[in-house]
Amino acid sequence: MLTFWYEFASSYSYPAAMRIEAAAKAAGVGLRWRPFLLGPIFAAQGWQDSPFNLYPLKGQYMWRDLARICAKEGLPLRRPSLFPQNGLLAARVAFAGQNEPWIGGFTRAIYSANFAEGEDISKPETVLRCLEVAGGEGEAWLASAADPAVKAAFKAQNDEAAELGLFGAPSFTVDGELFWGNDRLEQAIAWAKGERPVGALALSLS
Amino acid sequence: MLTFWYEFASSYSYPAAMRIEAAAKAAGVGLRWRPFLLGPIFAAQGWQDSPFNLYPLKGQYMWRDLARICAKEGLPLRRPSLFPQNGLLAARVAFAGQNEPWIGGFTRAIYSANFAEGEDISKPETVLRCLEVAGGEGEAWLASAADPAVKAAFKAQNDEAAELGLFGAPSFTVDGELFWGNDRLEQAIAWAKGERPVGALALSLS
Repeated sequence: MLTFWYEFASSYSYPAAMRIEAAAKAAGVGLRWRPFLLGPIFAAQGWQDSPFNLYPLKGQYMWRDLARICAKEGLPLRRPSLFPQNGLLAARVAFAGQNEPWIGGFTRAIYSANFAEGEDISKPETVLRCLEVAGGEGEAWLASAADPAVKAAFKAQNDEAAELGLFGAPSFTVDGELFWGNDRLEQAIAWAKGERPVGALALSLS
Repeated sequence: MLTFWYEFASSYSYPAAMRIEAAAKAAGVGLRWRPFLLGPIFAAQGWQDSPFNLYPLKGQYMWRDLARICAKEGLPLRRPSLFPQNGLLAARVAFAGQNEPWIGGFTRAIYSANFAEGEDISKPETVLRCLEVAGGEGEAWLASAADPAVKAAFKAQNDEAAELGLFGAPSFTVDGELFWGNDRLEQAIAWAKGERPVGALALSLS
């Protein structure tokens, strides 16, 4: 079982989100969708903004690197006018529906809105449209984001992310093993299939 | 032509250094070795230590991720008692010899000393042994690190790294295109071979 931890504002989560469902299916690996928020995790590290904004050289590189990745994957990319966007509403809706059949389609629609279509994902109408694209009951699921029980349970999921040691997105976990970054998706899938390096790994940190 | 920018204290530079010469040769791509120092570049970003020490979650993850990488590559890994080590002496020697036939062997020997053998790479005797392993004229090249002209030229190479926008190691440059991280080596080699994504890349950042 592969668990996919993603933040809708996260740029590198975009290519991961677009391919993870097909990649997991091709490998015969089960997939759990787990939206979370980077804001509290970054704040705990002393950052009040994305490190890509705090460190301009890293940010400049990230956009170029992401462009190369998207070009290779055949994904459209349009740099958002605001980065990072506020993904709280979309994340709460995704959390409410994370075990629903439309979660993959909804997640991809939000990422496309953010990184390919230049839309404001904090707007209810954007979230509603993405729900409808994905086949979810739009109004009802949108309303669920305001449910105090959903808010509290989503906060608990964010606490779980912190306890797992997550510090960025996208992240993948398999039996407590953490993988960080779009470029680690294949490794995480291999780990979930039981393909794990032996020998050196056990000894290397002694 | 592929240019390899590396810092002897950098953990992820270790697996890159161990495989880059063979990988470039297999691809028919020329390789330039360019040692540099991360200290001044980190200081310019406000860091007085490795980000892997400043952000313990990132550090904890890095050692585990590096262990997985080394296990997969069949590389020994022993976590150094001191991280990051002071690689200035070794870097000056590597700079002095960066166009010599022994540069690859010397570079690998220093990384092995740091990340596999638990040695102190700041010591002249360690650097001397690595020169001898690599077939360089040990004493003469060791002495070159103290040459004011070598020191000044190495500082100019570090200024060039900063001008290229380098912010971490390992980094690879090809015709001004920057790639950061051990996991980008294959992309950089492909770029050097002229395999460059088109279409989306040109438009993506407009």
